[in-house]
Amino acid sequence: MSSPSANQNTYPYQNEPTWSKSEKAIARTAFDAALGRELHEVIQRARQMASEIQQSSDLWDLEHYLTERRREIDRKYDYRYSQLTHVFGRLLHEKRLHEEELRGLQEDKLKSIRSFAQFLAGDTAA
Amino acid sequence: MSSPSANQNTYPYQNEPTWSKSEKAIARTAFDAALGRELHEVIQRARQMASEIQQSSDLWDLEHYLTERRREIDRKYDYRYSQLTHVFGRLLHEKRLHEEELRGLQEDKLKSIRSFAQFLAGDTAA
Repeated sequence: MSSPSANQNTYPYQNEPTWSKSEKAIARTAFDAALGRELHEVIQRARQMASEIQQSSDLWDLEHYLTERRREIDRKYDYRYSQLTHVFGRLLHEKRLHEEELRGLQEDKLKSIRSFAQFLAGDTAA
Repeated sequence: MSSPSANQNTYPYQNEPTWSKSEKAIARTAFDAALGRELHEVIQRARQMASEIQQSSDLWDLEHYLTERRREIDRKYDYRYSQLTHVFGRLLHEKRLHEEELRGLQEDKLKSIRSFAQFLAGDTAA
């Protein structure tokens, strides 16, 4: 018998929605687009910070900025089907993803995604 | 009685040379000049790397480069009088310091500095 992780995309656990082939294609495109946009932002900001370096503290500020962004991106962009509704919910909340990019996903997934986005909105508004 | 570290610049331990007021001024100037030049190099290189970023791996290469340089600089530029002959020896060996910048130090210190530079030269030639 294979390990649970090898099975996770095929035999979802309780409460985990199944992702059809076409949904997987939509998810991958949306995920990659958001990640690409976020990386583009970081690249622009890094170039700007580098061009403005005047002293050593600016240099280490740039290092710190890059370390923080790398960690945040690693944490945020988790392409596991068990995590994707949370991932997309966060990206919607952060306006890094437009809901239209998720068109074609089943309604139950869109509901979970919107619901998590709203939860995060309430969290930051509080 | 004060702690040993509070005394280290005033009452050197065995085998540690004393540094006169004028020698301390020379050492500080030489140290700061070498550090300034090394930081300037890192700033130039960081700017160049940032301007050439094409993809995320280039971004994390820049982060890695900065982290490595920061650690190396922290390790190398140790302004304790007990460490200075080794620090200057290394900087001479790396051609980050010209011997003329140390003019005015006592001959015993210059000997230790040159001797450590030669030791490192032999080490890298081996």
